[in-house]
This record gives sequence, C-alpha cells and structure tokens, in this order.
Amino acid sequence: MNFASDNVTGMAPEILQAIAAANEPAAAMPYGDDDISRGLDALFGGIFEADCQVFPVATGTAANALSLSILSPPYGAIYGLAHSHTNEDECGAPEFYTGGAKLVPIRGENGKLTRATFDATLADQGPAQGVHVVQPAAVSVTQATEMGTVYAPDEMAEICAFARANDLYVHVDGSRFANAVASLGCRPAELTVGAGVDIMSFGATKNGALAAEAVVIFNPELGESLGFRRKRGGHLFSKMRFLSAQLEAYLTDGLWLKLAGHANAMAERLADGLSDLDEVEVSFPVEANMIFARFPIGLVEQLYDVGFVFHHWGDPDWPTVRLVTAFNTDPDHVDRFIDAAHAHGTGA
Amino acid sequence: MNFASDNVTGMAPEILQAIAAANEPAAAMPYGDDDISRGLDALFGGIFEADCQVFPVATGTAANALSLSILSPPYGAIYGLAHSHTNEDECGAPEFYTGGAKLVPIRGENGKLTRATFDATLADQGPAQGVHVVQPAAVSVTQATEMGTVYAPDEMAEICAFARANDLYVHVDGSRFANAVASLGCRPAELTVGAGVDIMSFGATKNGALAAEAVVIFNPELGESLGFRRKRGGHLFSKMRFLSAQLEAYLTDGLWLKLAGHANAMAERLADGLSDLDEVEVSFPVEANMIFARFPIGLVEQLYDVGFVFHHWGDPDWPTVRLVTAFNTDPDHVDRFIDAAHAHGTGA
Amino acid sequence: MNFASDNVTGMAPEILQAIAAANEPAAAMPYGDDDISRGLDALFGGIFEADCQVFPVATGTAANALSLSILSPPYGAIYGLAHSHTNEDECGAPEFYTGGAKLVPIRGENGKLTRATFDATLADQGPAQGVHVVQPAAVSVTQATEMGTVYAPDEMAEICAFARANDLYVHVDGSRFANAVASLGCRPAELTVGAGVDIMSFGATKNGALAAEAVVIFNPELGESLGFRRKRGGHLFSKMRFLSAQLEAYLTDGLWLKLAGHANAMAERLADGLSDLDEVEVSFPVEANMIFARFPIGLVEQLYDVGFVFHHWGDPDWPTVRLVTAFNTDPDHVDRFIDAAHAHGTGA
Amino acid sequence: MNFASDNVTGMAPEILQAIAAANEPAAAMPYGDDDISRGLDALFGGIFEADCQVFPVATGTAANALSLSILSPPYGAIYGLAHSHTNEDECGAPEFYTGGAKLVPIRGENGKLTRATFDATLADQGPAQGVHVVQPAAVSVTQATEMGTVYAPDEMAEICAFARANDLYVHVDGSRFANAVASLGCRPAELTVGAGVDIMSFGATKNGALAAEAVVIFNPELGESLGFRRKRGGHLFSKMRFLSAQLEAYLTDGLWLKLAGHANAMAERLADGLSDLDEVEVSFPVEANMIFARFPIGLVEQLYDVGFVFHHWGDPDWPTVRLVTAFNTDPDHVDRFIDAAHAHGTGA
Repeated sequence: MNFASDNVTGMAPEILQAIAAANEPAAAMPYGDDDISRGLDALFGGIFEADCQVFPVATGTAANALSLSILSPPYGAIYGLAHSHTNEDECGAPEFYTGGAKLVPIRGENGKLTRATFDATLADQGPAQGVHVVQPAAVSVTQATEMGTVYAPDEMAEICAFARANDLYVHVDGSRFANAVASLGCRPAELTVGAGVDIMSFGATKNGALAAEAVVIFNPELGESLGFRRKRGGHLFSKMRFLSAQLEAYLTDGLWLKLAGHANAMAERLADGLSDLDEVEVSFPVEANMIFARFPIGLVEQLYDVGFVFHHWGDPDWPTVRLVTAFNTDPDHVDRFIDAAHAHGTGA
Repeated sequence: MNFASDNVTGMAPEILQAIAAANEPAAAMPYGDDDISRGLDALFGGIFEADCQVFPVATGTAANALSLSILSPPYGAIYGLAHSHTNEDECGAPEFYTGGAKLVPIRGENGKLTRATFDATLADQGPAQGVHVVQPAAVSVTQATEMGTVYAPDEMAEICAFARANDLYVHVDGSRFANAVASLGCRPAELTVGAGVDIMSFGATKNGALAAEAVVIFNPELGESLGFRRKRGGHLFSKMRFLSAQLEAYLTDGLWLKLAGHANAMAERLADGLSDLDEVEVSFPVEANMIFARFPIGLVEQLYDVGFVFHHWGDPDWPTVRLVTAFNTDPDHVDRFIDAAHAHGTGA
Repeated sequence: MNFASDNVTGMAPEILQAIAAANEPAAAMPYGDDDISRGLDALFGGIFEADCQVFPVATGTAANALSLSILSPPYGAIYGLAHSHTNEDECGAPEFYTGGAKLVPIRGENGKLTRATFDATLADQGPAQGVHVVQPAAVSVTQATEMGTVYAPDEMAEICAFARANDLYVHVDGSRFANAVASLGCRPAELTVGAGVDIMSFGATKNGALAAEAVVIFNPELGESLGFRRKRGGHLFSKMRFLSAQLEAYLTDGLWLKLAGHANAMAERLADGLSDLDEVEVSFPVEANMIFARFPIGLVEQLYDVGFVFHHWGDPDWPTVRLVTAFNTDPDHVDRFIDAAHAHGTGA
Repeated sequence: MNFASDNVTGMAPEILQAIAAANEPAAAMPYGDDDISRGLDALFGGIFEADCQVFPVATGTAANALSLSILSPPYGAIYGLAHSHTNEDECGAPEFYTGGAKLVPIRGENGKLTRATFDATLADQGPAQGVHVVQPAAVSVTQATEMGTVYAPDEMAEICAFARANDLYVHVDGSRFANAVASLGCRPAELTVGAGVDIMSFGATKNGALAAEAVVIFNPELGESLGFRRKRGGHLFSKMRFLSAQLEAYLTDGLWLKLAGHANAMAERLADGLSDLDEVEVSFPVEANMIFARFPIGLVEQLYDVGFVFHHWGDPDWPTVRLVTAFNTDPDHVDRFIDAAHAHGTGA
C-alpha cells in the first residue's frame, strides 16, 4: 500500500512484453540505428501532429538537463519555479549540463508559473545589465506540476507568448505529461507545439516504463548539438532498441493515456474520500495523480502503523503529506486508506 | 562630478608611484617569485594578525569566483543575498569557476544576511534530500555590503557561528572591505579571521589601485588548489610584481584606511546634506561610501542637467538612485550636489 | 551474421528473466533502496574478495566518466592510450565529467599501456612545471583492451606499482572485463584490487545485459562524491531495481564467465580458421572476443556480398577489419565466415 | 643578466607614461566605456587593415582560452602542437573555458604545425565517427612559435586553407606576434586576416607592457559571446582605461615593432656569437627572440657561476638550454654571455 511516489512502481505488462519482443532479433545495429528507434520521430510526430526530433534517454533528470543544455549558453538564465524538479531535485544537473547557467527561481501559484509571478521576479532584479548579468535564455515549466496541478492549453499559450516576447525558449518538464493530457482530455499538441513550446522532456518511467524518457524537440532550429551532448553525457544507449521499444509500446493504442487515466482516477477517488475530513487540508487542486495535504501528525502515524507508505515533512504537529497514485494503484488500497483516515480519532 | 561608482576613479598617487618603483629592476622573476610578491603573506599576516595565504588577482569577480571554487564542489550550494555581486553582477562567474554549483538566493535586511533570513530560506526548502539536492557548502557575505551598510564584528561572528554549525565555509566579498574597517574603526581581524571567516576577496581597485585584489585564505586547510585554479582561470600574472606592488603600497602606512576614510566621510557629508529634503527617502543606513535613496524623477533630471553622473532605476516617477563616493571625491562636488538638490523645486 | 560489435546483441535469456522477476513486486523503494540494489556491494565483494562500493549505471561511457571524475581534479592529467575508448569514443565525456581535465595520450603496444610507453610520454614533456601544467592524477587502462588483448595479472601489478610511485590512481575500463577474466582463467581480484586498482567500470551490456554497468570502487578513500555526481549526471535510475537485477543475474552462477567464455571461444575459432590465409594479416594477439586484421578489399567486399556485417577502415586497398564475437554468436556463422574467406580468389 | 624569459622584464618607459597619463582624468566610465578603450577597434583596424573587434585582457592565457571558447563547442576538437603553450603551459585553461573541449596534440617541425603533420594526425585516428568523437572545431598555432621560429605568410595561408577546407577556425596565439612581424618585415595583415585567420591573441606583456593582451576578432561572425565570457571569466577590468592605454601606446608610432626588433636583434647577435662553438648545437632556426640549444652541462654551470640566468632541462650531461632576449636586453649582457661561453674549456 505504497503512495510514496509513482516511481515505486514497476513496469506495465505491455512494456515488459515490448522489451522481450525487442530481444528477438539476434542482432540489431546499435546506437539508434535499429528499426524501432528509427521509427520514433514519426511515432511522436503523429502524437504531436508536428515534426519532432526524438532522443530517448533513461532518466528524467537526463532529459531535463540535456534539454536545457541546448536552450541556454553557459552565461544564460533559465527561469522556473523555486520548487521545480530541475531546481530542487536534480543535484544541479541543469547547471552541470549547461556549463554553469543560472536557474533563476520564481514563485508559483498552485505550483504553476504565471505571467504575474514571472513579471514580479524580473521587476525585483537589480539595475545591473549588459555583460554583468546572465542573459535570459529560457523558461522551464513542469506539466503536470510537482504539486499535482496542470496547466490548461491557454495557460501554456500565455507562458509561451510572453516567453517569445522576451526571446526566451520554452521547455516543458513532462515527466508526468501523460497525467496532464489524461486530466485535461485535450490533444497533446495543444499543450506543447501548438502553444509554442520549443522542447519537452517526455516521461514514461513514472507511468509504467522500466526507464524511458525522451527529449522531444519541436523547434526545428534546435537539436543540432543534442546528439553530441547526449553521447558526452553518457546517455546514448548502445542497445537503444530497448529504450525505443518501451516508448513505442507506451504510445501505441493509447496505452500511455490509459495508464495515466487510471492513476488520475485513483487520486481523485482518494481526494474525494478524504474531503469530508475536517482535520485534512488539501493544499492544491488535485488535477493529476498527486495529493498534497496537511495531516495532523497523529493521523500520519496511525496510517503508517496500518502499513501505508508515503512521505511527510514540515511542521512536526501538522505536517505536509504527499500521496501519489500510479498506473497500477489498487483501488482497494485507496479505499482502505480512506477508511483508515476516517477511523482516526474515532476510536475505531 | 561623478557619483556613478567608485570604479570610475583612477589610481591614488601612492599606487602609481609604487608601480613605477616596481619597474626599476630590469629583471625580476615572474609569476610571483619576485621580492614584493614573496612578502605579501607576511604583510597581510600583519594586518590580519594571523597566517594568511595571499593570491593577488586583478578583478573582484576573479577573486570571488576563485574563492568560491575552493569552498564548494560542483554539486554544492552557496548561500548569499539575492542582490549580492556574486549572484547578480558577475555573469555567472561563480557557477563557472565552481563547475556549476548553485547560488541559493537569500533575502536580506538592509543589505545584510542574517540568521533569521538564512533560517527562513532553509525552512522553505522542499522535502528532497540526499543525493537529489545540492549539498550545503558555503555562505558568502559582502563587506561593506552592496547597499552601503556594514556588518559589525558581532554580526560577522554570528554568521560564522551558524555557518560552522551547519558545516558551511564563510567567504567575505571584501571589494569595499577598507570602507567597512574605516567605518567601524575596528581591527581587520575582528571582521574576518577572528570572527571565523575562512577566506576573503580583499579589494583595492575601487579604493585607489589600478587593478588589484587578493584572495586571502585564513583557514589553513584551504588553498591547496587555489594556485592551479588561478592559473587555469588565466589570472596568474607573469609580471606579478606589478599587482603585488599595488597591494604593498595600499597596505603600507595605513593608506588603505586613509583613502576609505575619505570616501566614507564624503558619503556621510552627502547624506547629511540631503537629510532635510522631504522628497528624498534614503533606503539604507549610510555606513560606508554609498547612498541608496529614492528621488523624484524631476530631481534626478535636474541633477543630470547640472552635470552630475550617477545611476537610477526602478519606478519611473520615483526611482532609486545610487550615489557612490570614493577616495578622491572632491568635497566641493559633494557640496554642489547638495546645493543643487536643494535648488530643485524652489525655482532657484 | 553480424560481427560488427558485441553491442549488436540483445539480452541473454537469464537477464530478461531477472528483469521480469524484478517486476513482480507492485512496489519497491526507488533510487537503490530496494532489496536487490542493497545487496550489490556484498555480491561484488564476494566476486572481488574485497569491500566494494557499487554504483550501477546504464552505459559504459557513464561508468568511465563518473569514475574518472572522482580521480582527477579539473586541473588534472589522466594518462591513457591514444586509442582508448575514453579518449576516442566518448565525445569528450571524461572532460565533461571532470570539469575539463586533460587526457594525455600515450602510445601502446598491442593495445596495452606499458611502463616503457608511459615513461616515454613523461620524458617527452616540456620543461613547464608547477601551476603551469595539469597535475598528474590517474592512469586509465582498458581490460580486455580495445584491440582484443588482455593484461595479465603481473602486467596490471606493474602498472599499479608505477602509478602508485607517481601518486596516480588506477582506473580500469572493464566494459569487456568478463572476456579478460574468462581468457586468463584467473581470479577477478588478481586483475583488480589485488593488483592495486582503485576503481573500475564493470561492464555487462556487451556481454548479455540490456544496459547495465557499474562503477566499482575498491579504494575505500574514494567514493564520497560519486553518488552526487551520478545523480547530477542524470544516471541515478528511479527504478534502480531493474539495473541491479541485471547485475545480480549476471554475477550469479558464473553466468558472466560462461557468456564471455563462449564469445572468446568463437573469436579463437574464427582466428584459427583464418590463420592459413596468406592475404589476411592479424594485427594483434587474439586474446578475448575481437580480431583486428588487414584484409584485401576484394575479400571485404565479397564477405559483405555474402551477408556478413563488420567494420573496415583505413587503407582503401588493404583495410583494417574488426570482427567481434559475442555471448550469442552462432558457431555456424563463424564457420561460414571462414569458408567464405577461403572461397575468395579461388573462384569457388 | 637574465635570459630566462621575456616576462622577467618590466615596462617600456612609453607604457608607464601612458598609464600615468590615463590616470589624469579624475573619472572615466568603467568597463571599457572610456575614450581610450572605445578607440581600440579602430586602432587595431588600422594596424590590421580590417574591421576588428578588440577585447583587452591582462594575460596571454586568458586571451588564448577566451579565444578558443568561442571557436569550439564543449564537444569540439582543437588541433595544435603538443608543445604549444595552450596545451602544455596553461594548466588546462582551454579545457576550462571551452567547457571541456579536447586539445588534440599534433607533432611539429621546427616548432611549426604543417599540413603534413596535421594530415598525419588525422590519418592516425581510429574508425570512430559521428557522435562518438569530438567534432573538429579549430586549429591553433603560435606566432612567433614556442621554439623561436616564425610562420611566413605563405605558411599561414596554407594552414588557413586546409583549415577552411576542413571547416576549422584558425586561432593564432600571438603572445610574441610583434617578434614575428619584426622578423618577417611583412604587414601584420599578411600573417592574420589576409591569410585567413579568424581570431588572435595579441600580446604586449612580454614586449614591454605591464600586463596587456587582447583578443582580436577578424571574423565578423564571431564575437557575439566573447564579452559575456570575458566577464564570466573575471577578465573584465573595471578600470579598463589602464589596459587600453597600454595597448594604445604599444601600437602608436611603431613602438611595438621597435621593441620587438631590438629583442630579435639581440637574439641574432647572441646566436651569431655562439655559432663557432662546436659544443653548442642550436636546435631550431633563430627567427625571433629565443634560442634553443644543447649545451654541455659544464658550460651551463660555468655560465650560472658567472651570473647568467636561464633555464635548462632534459639530458643531464647535455641539456637543452633556452635563451630569451627582450625589448630591454642590454647588448653588453649579450656580449658578456658570448665571451663567457668562449671562455669555457679554455681555462680562460
């Protein structure tokens, strides 16, 4: 009964089958020169209704850092939320891959960067200019966000519009992109290339793959150096077919949205089930597969005692709790969690 | 009548004389193996009442970036004010020299980092830990600050104490260190090695040198790699004697404090002269050689018309103005500025 | 009938089974906090008869670059063969991960670095010293070598002895380490920790894994920063169990040596079969799973026509050919290659 | 009587006077916005008969590393002599500033890179290609060379021609460029922009400046990022007028060639004076201000005893000696050296 993260999961059966099938040929040319890998640009192109350059990698941190490395020079500024994964959870990978660019933290609203919070950051900057300051290069947003919310198509379009007006590229960290699409029910293009996004980190690992992500480049002017940077970063798989096979299966027959839809439904079920509890305060709208809420510590401890696994931090008496559902979350676990939460303090 | 910065100045006569004198020997061994350079450790040691390793360089950015490069690994966090020179005015030099460490911005009070603002930053961090986050490595503070204030010895001691408690090194950006010492009238050691500072960027350029700064290392465990990093950064002068001669003259017979004392006195005189103007709001205590104030734009423009040079930014109607005095500021210029300010709006 | 590389292969059945088995638990803690991953230090410790710190990654380039990043400062020199994988085939990954260290190329004999070739390199260096030159940091050797030869235990011991005498760490690029052990029939420790090796890149991918390598640290003074650098490089898998399961299966019941033994036997069979051909000149002793030889271009083209896949380069008339066998090479393919080679020029 | 290096010298009187004159204005705008600095592009443009972008810095290592940083991506290859200053004497500065590019060493003839030695290097490379190898980016040559020879205009043109044919930029390390021009008696343009050079490090320090070099960009497509990289490297002087004044004086009224001409004449006089000594073997043509020769150790020691200062290294019995003359070398010192050398072994 693990709600700690969607990365505690294993593989969806379809992914494992795809890996096994990719093992059938005794030989396939390495480094992406196999049939499955060569088909990825077209496969993603169909999903996103646009020409795409697709570079599979194995981790989200790699996808993010490589993406940012082609958007910003070493003397560039990359704007993003203070609590974004790129800024807080990658041990400085973007700084490493960009050669020392600066991630300028921006405050968010419900986990989302907005034009207002962005403008406030720029207004707060000092008078320095010219060669003295890092040069504005890119904006990076996360979709679905680290707070379990999603940007609607018009919100993405607004970000892209002011980014373009300020000569900034737009990157989307889409480690949970499937959850956003499933939540919004929109076309993937509306959230990306159609809105004006230049490049994204497309995630599959959290949603049923063994380890498969992809840098997907929409802006045809980008991408020239990505292959060199991927190799130099140690992220070019010799047996690339095994990465590509995961991505192919993931995007075939709507598997990615089916898996994400289940995860989202489980989060909604869980949030609904907790909504009548006075002692639980949900922090953000639950729009994807994560719930952030403040629980009394007694409730946290009781849930741990029953066997639930999840993270809590912050205030010792009334900590913040994060509950993450996934493609394989058992509805029965959700219901048992709700029941256990209601039992707290009732003596039940 | 230039109050734009203390770096619009040239050299104090004593510095120029020292350079000329250093040119007398037809030959001197290069790269610091000359007599003047070899005497610097002892010279600084006398000033700071402690063993020092001294590495002359030509710019403050070089001194800061090199200092931080030996305090933080590439995966480290360096805490400092959002508006510090290292974070805002060096085009990412610290990130470059550290190999991509992260400068974590902290809000200040009167241009100073305090225990409270530091704690607030740490408390605001998310739940990530372990290898996922950059590792706390150092705190960097500026003395005198970018806002023209100074840290008293007990304030420095408090910063060093909580830094040590958190396994953080302490760096002082002392590009205006002389102004701080002259302002406080304390022993240089009280603000540095005595308080627990590990390393400082000691500045002379803004206070009368041609171009001379020094990385001064107090912590004997540091410094092993500094010489390599200085060379690799292109900051090892072959004719080092000309850097060293500036520093030697600067620290001889109290020249540095005499020059800084004049600059400070001129700022005080200017602040006093403006204090009775209702339309001028001084932003920070004037404790060194800089005044930050908000002026009505009409006053700004009138002063420009009269021929004064200084920077303004921010609100179009009521901008922030920075006035910087220096070792060679003419008292008559100060008085004329005060008179011109009083003439504004009076029709005079 | 592909002899292009051992990375054209897929997985050994045991590896695929291990991955499937690792997928059984619905949840396992991420980032190496699962049971399989936690057992790796002990598993490798048993193989190498010594305490080991094991850091799984997915590519050999990652393993090499991360290993070197903890052996050399940015201003360090890493000695290795000019034609080593680290120097020639990783698009500068070691330079990237070390922050710009210098790989100093050394000439080899039969693909091996020797004390004589190393001394000749050092003797050829100019008079510069001190901070002007990159500081000797490490030696990196490949086992089995890029030329299909192997270092015997006494050769490794000699390298480690002169490395230690010169304060250099020793790294082994063991992307084909299994082939070396299988060829020599010695204990793994004799080639590594017993000889004085500090750290190795232990490879499994070329020998039957999907994508699994490990940085294995023998020197207990190293390793402190490896976890941060792995995360920062984007090489920390969230679902680490799938990397670890491959390594576990690989090292269980001697699978790794069984697979490598087959590859080696196929290379020997192929070399033997070609040995009576006057027009074929084998370049190096065939001691592992690779044959380098010069073939007349007519023979190359005829083999291509029959359907064999392999690389050739160099002299247009008498190019160098590389033939690589693998854990799953079909003996019948070997025999058909030999027959086809003998048929050349005979009109058969 | 110091022949150790041209960097043991101080300033030419004209340079010191220029610095003193630049100190006259009480204020000048910083960071290159002063009159002298703003005139440099035109001043160099006149010398080189072409549009130039000029970026003053204080050291040759800075000029070289910054130049290369805009010619090569982090995954690039920079070709140059194994014994070049960039490769051997800068502690890895080019690797640092490029973000980890690879300096590929090439053997020279008489200290010069030639088409033949360049082709031999390329031919010796292995079969790897594509993203696996660092991408050819630039060639760097030194003029006058580290061996005291010079490239004639046609030699430079040939290098530039094959560089262009291979899509390589050409950089000239001109720390002793004045010595080359003075030696050849040609127009500066013939050795640079006219031959096809893209960028050069123009040196003044070794030839009479305090510390002044300049990155001079001839290729108008380059230079966009140089200002940011210079600032980020800590090489942007606030009091830039003092760098610029040195360069201005240096290039005015032919001072640079007058100074270099004297240095060259002293080297020629010294070489001529030693030419009849059987025990002295000059290693390279003496075409600028340096003599490399092999001396018997007895002669070396006798010269040291008399009070001459110079470097020797290599064979203990018959070491290599480097003798460097400079703009201020006293002819009497040259003659005394010649006399002392002739006295050796004669019992005189």
